[in-house]
Amino acid sequence: MKLNENYKNLAESYLFSNIAHKVAAYQAAHPDKKILRLGIGDVTLPLAPAVIEAMHKAVDEMSKKESFRGYGPEQGYDFLRESIRGYYARRGISLDLSEIFVSDGAKSDCGNILDIFDTANTVLVPDPVYPVYVDTNVMAGRKIVYMNATAENGFLPMPDESVAADIIYLCSPNNPTGAAYTAAQLREWVDYARRRGAVILYDAAYESFACEGVARSIYEVEGAKDCAIELCSFSKTAGFTGTRCGYTVVPQALVFGGMSCNKLWLRRQTTKFNGVSYIVQRGAAAVFTEEGEAQIRANLDVYRKNAAIIAGTMDKLGIFYTGGKNSPYIWLQCPNGMKSWDFFDLLLNEVQVVGTPGSGFGKNGEGFFRLTAFGSEETTREACGRIEKLLRAKQ
Amino acid sequence: MKLNENYKNLAESYLFSNIAHKVAAYQAAHPDKKILRLGIGDVTLPLAPAVIEAMHKAVDEMSKKESFRGYGPEQGYDFLRESIRGYYARRGISLDLSEIFVSDGAKSDCGNILDIFDTANTVLVPDPVYPVYVDTNVMAGRKIVYMNATAENGFLPMPDESVAADIIYLCSPNNPTGAAYTAAQLREWVDYARRRGAVILYDAAYESFACEGVARSIYEVEGAKDCAIELCSFSKTAGFTGTRCGYTVVPQALVFGGMSCNKLWLRRQTTKFNGVSYIVQRGAAAVFTEEGEAQIRANLDVYRKNAAIIAGTMDKLGIFYTGGKNSPYIWLQCPNGMKSWDFFDLLLNEVQVVGTPGSGFGKNGEGFFRLTAFGSEETTREACGRIEKLLRAKQ
Repeated sequence: MKLNENYKNLAESYLFSNIAHKVAAYQAAHPDKKILRLGIGDVTLPLAPAVIEAMHKAVDEMSKKESFRGYGPEQGYDFLRESIRGYYARRGISLDLSEIFVSDGAKSDCGNILDIFDTANTVLVPDPVYPVYVDTNVMAGRKIVYMNATAENGFLPMPDESVAADIIYLCSPNNPTGAAYTAAQLREWVDYARRRGAVILYDAAYESFACEGVARSIYEVEGAKDCAIELCSFSKTAGFTGTRCGYTVVPQALVFGGMSCNKLWLRRQTTKFNGVSYIVQRGAAAVFTEEGEAQIRANLDVYRKNAAIIAGTMDKLGIFYTGGKNSPYIWLQCPNGMKSWDFFDLLLNEVQVVGTPGSGFGKNGEGFFRLTAFGSEETTREACGRIEKLLRAKQ
Repeated sequence: MKLNENYKNLAESYLFSNIAHKVAAYQAAHPDKKILRLGIGDVTLPLAPAVIEAMHKAVDEMSKKESFRGYGPEQGYDFLRESIRGYYARRGISLDLSEIFVSDGAKSDCGNILDIFDTANTVLVPDPVYPVYVDTNVMAGRKIVYMNATAENGFLPMPDESVAADIIYLCSPNNPTGAAYTAAQLREWVDYARRRGAVILYDAAYESFACEGVARSIYEVEGAKDCAIELCSFSKTAGFTGTRCGYTVVPQALVFGGMSCNKLWLRRQTTKFNGVSYIVQRGAAAVFTEEGEAQIRANLDVYRKNAAIIAGTMDKLGIFYTGGKNSPYIWLQCPNGMKSWDFFDLLLNEVQVVGTPGSGFGKNGEGFFRLTAFGSEETTREACGRIEKLLRAKQ
C-alpha cells in the first residue's frame, strides 16, 4: 500500500498559527491592553431572523413522521436551486436548474471539483493566492504556474498568451486582495480560455460585496458558459461560515473532448456526496426571500461601512490599497517600505491591532497587509483611530 | 484541458431508476392497488426529541451575536468528538480525540478518504457490493479485484492469501446482504492486512444493528489500529439520512512508508472541507446523551422488530437468507431458482410488494433479493403476510 506521495510536496502554512502565538504572547505580557482584531475572514453578525425562522421550522418538520425528510437529492432540493436560479435571473443570468449544485460550502467544492479534471493539466493561479487553490492541486500532483498580482496591475493580473494553462483560478472580488475585475476584464479571460480550450474556476464567494461596476458573476460575459465553472457560498453573503452551504454552477455548455463537465460533476456528487442537511437548505432558501434579502442587506451594510472606514483611513494617510469598496478586505501597502511581519509586529506592539501579513499569501504579498471589515463598527473605528495616530506620528 | 477519462469506465447503474419506473408503471395501470415498499435503505422515523431540542437550541444560539458560531474546526467540535470517544470507550475501545474526524456522512468520507492513497494501489471489494466502493476507485483509475460473497460462505468472504490487495473494503453488518462478521473473523482480516501492509476501510454504518456476538467495530480486534480506518454514520443509528453527519476514525498508529494516515487525512480535511454545520453537530452530540440514547434505542427497536418479522417469514417459508438479525436488511434467495428481476416482477404484480433485486449489487447478487426493515410495523406485517400467502400457494 502506497500513500499519496504528492502530500510530501505540500508547503506547511504557519500564517494563522504564527499570528495566534504572537497575539497570545503579547496579551500574556500585557494583560491590561485591549487587543483589536481585524485579521480574521470570518463573519461576526448572527444569522438573519428569516434564516433562523426557516431553520426552526425545518427542525420541527424533522420531528414528525409526516414531515420528516430522509435522503434528499445530492444536487440539493429544488426549492433551493429554484431560489438560486432566481437570484441569478434577477441579474440577467439565465441558468437551467440542472446547472446548479448545492454543496456544504465553496471550499469543499473548490477542492472536490478537481476530481473531474485530469491530473496532467497545468494550473494557473495568481500570487498572492487563497492557499486552497494551490494545495488541492499539489495533492493531485498537477503542475502549477503563477501569475503576478502586484501594485502595478492593481492586483488584477490579465491573460498572458505566452502562458499555457488548462485550469485557471480567478477569485473576484479577491481574497486576500479585495481587488475586483470588471466584466470587460473578465471578457479577456473568457476569450483567452476559449482560445486555449481551458477551463476557468471562478470563485465568486465575495460577489455580494461587489458594486460600482465590477462583475458579480463570470456569466455576465457572453461565452463564459463554454469555459467557466462558478463557485459561490452563503458564508459571506449570509453569515453561513459555521452553518455551511454553498453552490456551484456547472453549465451544460461546458464540454471538453466530447465529455460534459455537468454530467461528470453530477456523477461525482451522486457518488461521493449525499447532499446538504435539509435544515440548512431551508435556511439558505430563506436568504432569497424578500424579508431575508432585506435583513442580509442590512448585515452586509454593516461590513461595507466598516470597509469604508478602513479605506477612508488609508486614503487620509495616503497609503496604497486595493479592496474596501467591493470587498470586506483591505489590502494595503505597508508604510515606509516595511515588510509584512514587521508591520504586523508594529501594529500589535504599538497600538494592539491585529491584521494579517500579506506575505502569508505568496511572495507578491510581501510588503502588504490585510485588514478585514468583519468586526463591529466600534472595533473598526477604534482600530482605525489607533492606526491613524500611530502612522501620522511616523510620517 | 483534459477531463478525467476514468469516468468513461464507470458502469451506469439503473437499479433504483428501473425500480421506480416499474413501480410507477404498475401503479398507473392499477390505481386501486396499494403498493407496499420494502425496497429503500432510508429511515422513516423522525429524529429523536433530544436531537430536535439540541438543534432548536443551536439555531437560537446562531441568532444572537454573543452565541453565534462562525467557522468551526474542520475535524468537528470537541464536544461531539468527546461524545464519540465516549461511545467507543463504553465498548472498551480507547481512541485519542485526534483520531476522530466528524464529517457530513459516511458516503462522503468513503469517497474522500481515497485522496490520501496512491492511485496505483489494488482495491479488494466484495461482490455483491455497495456501488460507492467501486465507483470512487474507478474514478481514480485504481485496479479493482473482487472477492465472492455467496451463500456458500454466508456472504462473508474471508482472506485469500493468493490475492494481492492494498486497499480492502469490509462492510459489516453488510449492505446489501446484512451478513455480519464476528470479531474472530475480523481478526483474520486484520492479520491478512498486517502481513500484506494493506489498509482496511471498515464501513461500520450499520453497527448499531449489530448484536448476538458479531463485531460492531474493527477496533475490537487487537492490532486493527495498525491497519484499519473505520467509517461510521448517524444516518441509520439516529435517522440522520437527511440531516447529514458521520465520523471517520483514522488511528495515529496507521503509518505506511513513514507517512501518517492521520496527518494526511487531517491535511486533506483542513484543505478540502470546512466542517459540519454547528447545528447538526449539536444534534449529533445529543444522540449520545442518556436521554438521546434511550430514544434512539426505541427507534432502532422498531426497525429491529420489523427485521425480525421479515426474517421470521423467511424462516417459516424455509427460504435461505442473511441479515435480519444484525441488520435492517434481509437478503434472501429467490424461491424456485428465480432470477432477481423475475422475483421483483412477481412480488410487484402479484402482491404489490416492492423490494430490491440483488443482481443490482453485483453478479453474485443474481438470484437474491433485498428487503428492508425501515418501513412501519404495519406495512412490514402486511407485506410479509402477502409474501407468505403468495409463496405458500407456489410451494
